[in-house]
Amino acid sequence: MENQNSPLNYLDFNASSPLHPELIEKIPQVLFHFGNPSSIHWAGRESKTLLREARENIAKLLNVQSLEIIFTSGGSEANTTVLHRFLSAAQKTSRNELITTKIEHPSISQSVIALRAQGIKVHEINVDRDGNFDWTHFQSVLSEKTALVSVMFANNETGVLLPIKDIAQQAHAVGAKMHTDAVQALGKVPLDLKDLDVDFASFSGHKFYSLKGTGVLYVKKGFDLGSLIFGGGQERKRRGGTENTLGIWSLGMMAQKKNQILDEALRMKYLRDMMEARIQKEISDVEITHKQALRLPNTSSLILRNVDGDTLLMSLDVKGFAISTGSACSSGRPEPSLVLRNIGLSHFEAQNSLRISFGWMTTEKQVHDFVDALKEVVQRLRKIDEEETLRKKYDSLECR
Amino acid sequence: MENQNSPLNYLDFNASSPLHPELIEKIPQVLFHFGNPSSIHWAGRESKTLLREARENIAKLLNVQSLEIIFTSGGSEANTTVLHRFLSAAQKTSRNELITTKIEHPSISQSVIALRAQGIKVHEINVDRDGNFDWTHFQSVLSEKTALVSVMFANNETGVLLPIKDIAQQAHAVGAKMHTDAVQALGKVPLDLKDLDVDFASFSGHKFYSLKGTGVLYVKKGFDLGSLIFGGGQERKRRGGTENTLGIWSLGMMAQKKNQILDEALRMKYLRDMMEARIQKEISDVEITHKQALRLPNTSSLILRNVDGDTLLMSLDVKGFAISTGSACSSGRPEPSLVLRNIGLSHFEAQNSLRISFGWMTTEKQVHDFVDALKEVVQRLRKIDEEETLRKKYDSLECR
Repeated sequence: MENQNSPLNYLDFNASSPLHPELIEKIPQVLFHFGNPSSIHWAGRESKTLLREARENIAKLLNVQSLEIIFTSGGSEANTTVLHRFLSAAQKTSRNELITTKIEHPSISQSVIALRAQGIKVHEINVDRDGNFDWTHFQSVLSEKTALVSVMFANNETGVLLPIKDIAQQAHAVGAKMHTDAVQALGKVPLDLKDLDVDFASFSGHKFYSLKGTGVLYVKKGFDLGSLIFGGGQERKRRGGTENTLGIWSLGMMAQKKNQILDEALRMKYLRDMMEARIQKEISDVEITHKQALRLPNTSSLILRNVDGDTLLMSLDVKGFAISTGSACSSGRPEPSLVLRNIGLSHFEAQNSLRISFGWMTTEKQVHDFVDALKEVVQRLRKIDEEETLRKKYDSLECR
Repeated sequence: MENQNSPLNYLDFNASSPLHPELIEKIPQVLFHFGNPSSIHWAGRESKTLLREARENIAKLLNVQSLEIIFTSGGSEANTTVLHRFLSAAQKTSRNELITTKIEHPSISQSVIALRAQGIKVHEINVDRDGNFDWTHFQSVLSEKTALVSVMFANNETGVLLPIKDIAQQAHAVGAKMHTDAVQALGKVPLDLKDLDVDFASFSGHKFYSLKGTGVLYVKKGFDLGSLIFGGGQERKRRGGTENTLGIWSLGMMAQKKNQILDEALRMKYLRDMMEARIQKEISDVEITHKQALRLPNTSSLILRNVDGDTLLMSLDVKGFAISTGSACSSGRPEPSLVLRNIGLSHFEAQNSLRISFGWMTTEKQVHDFVDALKEVVQRLRKIDEEETLRKKYDSLECR
């Protein structure tokens, strides 16, 4: 283990979450249920029971029916399934356009590139710097040609919440179907898919304290998307391949904690607001992105002017703090976060952006320790930066 | 747990395998490595290291390069990716036909149905009752129009091994690419993809004592299939979605046991041959499917005449033995195994077929116990069947 001199403080729950302690405790027993759920002997029946119980728990969590739940390998598979299966079928009809936003997860935005290459017309609605969804643009492109509207429930980088229920209502009014990528919302805010009245929704287990490799695709009863992955007729022929029983079981266990979600949301919001108040008071030149908008209670996206995001991330990493940035290095791409650029941040603002995201395990002490560390690091880096600027100035005077 | 009065004897390793005891021991520690491998902080780096090590181990196991290994959610995803991505691209060219067999796994055979619906020409070569690949048919349809040849390495139901190296050579001679679904071969026989000279190959973790939800797609260096699942550019943009680190780690651990594979293959073959010899000696009216062909060392497919497969499976299940059958009920479809029908078994022969498949954990005692139980159950069921036939004869005489 690295950072042996610093306690490890994980504040990047939007990237992935640690397992819930109850799962860590119970997993060793569940490992013995190894049967293939398609087998009809005792080993298969054990696994089938795990699947059925998980499906029921998740259906209750989302306020839908068990048979509307399809297990996938994750949120990306769920998103890809909806967009590609639905639009490929729609392409042959006169209702064949997609409306989405400019701040979606790459599983959507990369799908948009592929769908456009297939000749499908896609409209991307923007969300502005204040977190406002561009209703004017949306309404101007929404028509009887719209096959599908796909809008994320909450953005992973800023936490901004999109008005899904209203968007779904308007989509349905013209006869379009509605999908929401709700990966970042699960476990952070209460969700009721019946109330939202969406037709499709995507979720991921590893953002909700369960194992990686499990996702959920909600498909409203009566609609058949077919299968993205072909196999032995699993998931009522809606998703082939032997089910990841352990991962599915783990998400089902978390689903049983439905009643904790609101309490934890309020607790995380208290910590987040406290952190933001301290940062704004104690660190200069900070802006909080989408601060005035409705946001996930656990997420804070800061622009720390005159501090490079990557350097900041690495300096905090040395101290044991795990956070993420909108910087190029962090995104693994040559450019800083496209989402932050699209909502109106400059190249430098995106490069100087920091994302802190809390979870059920986050403590008040961790938050205070983090602000103390951030303050110290930002001051130090800005000082170095200032000295560097001065040095460059002297260099350019050719004093030497 | 059911069957409390009988010890549990799992003899259905081709359906899914129990976890290797070493994994059960180590998993609790690995659960603490929860970071997203795409994160650049300490938590992400830990997970990235797990992935890198697993990739290297699996590459060594298959005698290929690390970067030729793409992690998927399973064998079905790997198969679907090759067939759909490759053929969709090929469809626009003059080299656009697929050659496969009539005994493939549903992830291939269901894909064939979908590809044909897209207008792609597919030739399905048969394997006969003696396990012979129909070379005449293959050579008559192999041409410069052939884009891809996809043939399974070993059949899951009978264990028959297909002549992949020779098929690949002939495919390459006309400029076609070669894929093999080697899901059932992994861990049962030594595999060397360089020697086989295939371009693509599919594998699954849960048939090789590791966790469900992990598969491997081998893609020869220099070839880009694109991505079936869109996401954040994972797997060098070849497969989107956060990696199932625990599942991948577990397969990587098993890959390190490469040197055990041949020894276990010989041990399983000894047990399988011993079982078949006893069954043929002690039970009448038994035929072993593909007995004269090269087969996986762990698999035995029996036709037990005048015994219904489902009744047999359930009677053995009560005694704690987990096996599978070619029967309709077992396959979850209205008809018995299509693979068994295609190789030339009658409806009744397929319905009366039983598959026993061994694993590294199978003991000689289990095999003897199984033969004893099978003998007893078959005799009892045949007697009931005889009495039933007699009763029906009397009934038809209207004695009552």
